[in-house]
Amino acid sequence: MNYDLVVLGGGPGGYKAALKGAQNSLKTALVESAQLGGTCLNRGCVPTKLFLGATSVISQLENQKKLRLAQGNAVFDLASLQVRKKSLISASQNAMRTSLEKNGVDIFMDKGRLAGGKTVLAGSHKLRYNHLVLATGSKSGFPPHLKPDHQYILTSTDALELSAPPQSLTVIGAGPVGLEMGQIFHRLGTRVTLIEAMDRIAPMEDEQVSLELSRYLKRQGWNIITGSKVVKLSNDNNQLEVHLDNGQRVETQKCLLALGRRPNTDELNLKAAGIEVYGSGWIKTSESLMASADVYAIGDVNGMTMYAHAAAHQAEYVLDHILGRTDAHYPDNPPPSCIYGAMEVIRTGLTQKELVLKGLPFSVSSASLASNPIVQSHGQIQGFIKVIWSHDRVMGITGTGYAISGLITLAQIITHEKWTRGDAQKYIFAHPTVDETLQEALLASRSIIGDQI
Amino acid sequence: MNYDLVVLGGGPGGYKAALKGAQNSLKTALVESAQLGGTCLNRGCVPTKLFLGATSVISQLENQKKLRLAQGNAVFDLASLQVRKKSLISASQNAMRTSLEKNGVDIFMDKGRLAGGKTVLAGSHKLRYNHLVLATGSKSGFPPHLKPDHQYILTSTDALELSAPPQSLTVIGAGPVGLEMGQIFHRLGTRVTLIEAMDRIAPMEDEQVSLELSRYLKRQGWNIITGSKVVKLSNDNNQLEVHLDNGQRVETQKCLLALGRRPNTDELNLKAAGIEVYGSGWIKTSESLMASADVYAIGDVNGMTMYAHAAAHQAEYVLDHILGRTDAHYPDNPPPSCIYGAMEVIRTGLTQKELVLKGLPFSVSSASLASNPIVQSHGQIQGFIKVIWSHDRVMGITGTGYAISGLITLAQIITHEKWTRGDAQKYIFAHPTVDETLQEALLASRSIIGDQI
Repeated sequence: MNYDLVVLGGGPGGYKAALKGAQNSLKTALVESAQLGGTCLNRGCVPTKLFLGATSVISQLENQKKLRLAQGNAVFDLASLQVRKKSLISASQNAMRTSLEKNGVDIFMDKGRLAGGKTVLAGSHKLRYNHLVLATGSKSGFPPHLKPDHQYILTSTDALELSAPPQSLTVIGAGPVGLEMGQIFHRLGTRVTLIEAMDRIAPMEDEQVSLELSRYLKRQGWNIITGSKVVKLSNDNNQLEVHLDNGQRVETQKCLLALGRRPNTDELNLKAAGIEVYGSGWIKTSESLMASADVYAIGDVNGMTMYAHAAAHQAEYVLDHILGRTDAHYPDNPPPSCIYGAMEVIRTGLTQKELVLKGLPFSVSSASLASNPIVQSHGQIQGFIKVIWSHDRVMGITGTGYAISGLITLAQIITHEKWTRGDAQKYIFAHPTVDETLQEALLASRSIIGDQI
Repeated sequence: MNYDLVVLGGGPGGYKAALKGAQNSLKTALVESAQLGGTCLNRGCVPTKLFLGATSVISQLENQKKLRLAQGNAVFDLASLQVRKKSLISASQNAMRTSLEKNGVDIFMDKGRLAGGKTVLAGSHKLRYNHLVLATGSKSGFPPHLKPDHQYILTSTDALELSAPPQSLTVIGAGPVGLEMGQIFHRLGTRVTLIEAMDRIAPMEDEQVSLELSRYLKRQGWNIITGSKVVKLSNDNNQLEVHLDNGQRVETQKCLLALGRRPNTDELNLKAAGIEVYGSGWIKTSESLMASADVYAIGDVNGMTMYAHAAAHQAEYVLDHILGRTDAHYPDNPPPSCIYGAMEVIRTGLTQKELVLKGLPFSVSSASLASNPIVQSHGQIQGFIKVIWSHDRVMGITGTGYAISGLITLAQIITHEKWTRGDAQKYIFAHPTVDETLQEALLASRSIIGDQI
């Protein structure tokens, strides 16, 4: 069969690419080996946010009880949450399938594999393409000495399938996945230990953010160990033990490996199209996201970022490129990032560290959330919002606190537009909102700390 | 005493005006007859949001219980909430006072009154001004046949002081105040009846918003009566009865009058400065917010809007005008508006009705919140976001649903900048966020319905 466009992978990137192709009259095929929706819908953003959103009532009630304003309790049934998860995911998959089919996309639920001569094999089907988009995503990655057994030593996918919370959970890796999963199980009553090899949790984030988040989680009773590597996991009669390079040992009922991602490229036969990879198999792309002639790679698999919204944004761009609507390079802006939970983290644009690395002068302004009436009402006043400026323009925004994921698009637009102080004064920020603390941070006096990082 | 700037009223508008005056080297006096913070801090936005934010855990737990995901209960103690309210308000007042004093503002806690000859009396003090800003705000208003007795027939101020929820409450007036107060007491276990003289609740809002909100509140068990006027309130041995013009009677333990606002101008002796009023005493202002030579009126008291953030914005403008930094007119843009609670409402820019009245062609696009993963996680999927367009530019955004007050500043900026469809595609909206439904609404196909209103 001949196609204008063949897309490998039905996650957020591949779905968007196929849909936009078909909507623009390209004869389009989508090849997906597992389920529509990819990691995001099936074992990533969506199930974690379902569990975090539902159980947020637990930490909110705790906050009010600590203030002696309320009594009571909220007990969740994880098995029922799993049933709801499956039903929501299945509804989304059906909606995606319907939307693709309505727009005339041919869907092949098969393993896709490059076969040379502008051809892809989808199971036994031979699909000839004019344009190919690779959007096969990524999976959990592990070093050789830390292997999941899927019963005691879990991947995030395993952890999201549990029907009862473990008594204790040791999370190895304090990035977004580890932090969000830890918060889910903490709320459900699990004793959480968090181990990070770097010197702080959330090591990709601003240092102050890491510190504030760490303080909060410790106050919640988490055991946090940083600057230590796990050298071994031993399982003696179902008694799991985590061995650290400093000699310390942590006994735990279950262990979650949240150690980063690996690309899904092993079985693609990429050399058939002359496609090069780097690192653990990430696809090398040009500034137009091209992997070779007529082949694009978008989303996790090109190794640029691991965000669903970045994959979808790249899909939009790539289709515009295929359709001849743009010949500009794909913009090199960092995508907005959130860590969800009781204490949330946002980040847009550049961090202080990145500005130091770029050798740009910069200053910083910030505002505490403590006096914000909305966070006060929810009884969780920790955290702050911080703005990073260069040449009197906003270069980045970050922060941590209650419900601040709600600021992410606003912060993204402010960063993208490189607001001045004047811009922050021009608009009315409604009262009372968490947004006001962002405005306060934008208008606060700035300290030049470029040299101190 | 001689001042460059005298400000009457220490609410959000007056506070900001005095602070900015002093920060710009004007010798400034602030006169406040009651408490710093005005209606907003003491008996408006802040206490209502405290009560709504704290008790939100009740409706969230209900949502999860309805889905059979959780068990438990959350019981609030209103008396303790009152203690917390007082302490938060007092902390804010202290912060305001400290900030004013640190910047050199003279504070007079006295009734202010115009005395002619560019002079204001603050109690026994005589303050001569070069510039006067009137920011005395407003209070609850009542028609002659509906008078509060402050025990059974309450103002919103009275209702916010209750230390126990009534068994039943009849709210007269279904604007933002009535809707928010009704939601607070509903959560605390009160049977709520809502009476509105207009044909729908939230009559200032989009008709579909009113309808969706009404459906939600009825499902919550509210008794909603629209298109009926209250003709009498009778109290027979502490058995309160609300008499409607259609002959219907509603028995109720307490009644809340939420019937709009009246300006605080009766005792200002406005004629001493040749200031004119309209309606029930609202101060007439020019396009520069001037009430007479060297006298400005900002916030509620000029009758333009009743929003704290609008008062503060007007204060910023007026000080720029006094300082000679602008001679432009005060912008005639409607301020952003929120109604808070379990089901929230936002509105920016113009409504469909306002576009009809202006005779502008327009179209509408919208998106349902039902498939948004964040609102799904909180188990409250009702509602939608709607965008009003004219000449391919965003003229207004409105909507109702779970937690959508978090979109208000984003919506305000989009409306202020009159986004095109292209703008909505340019930015990355992080996944998963409620924000994505706003993007979906911006990108949805539009229907031209200008003739149908």
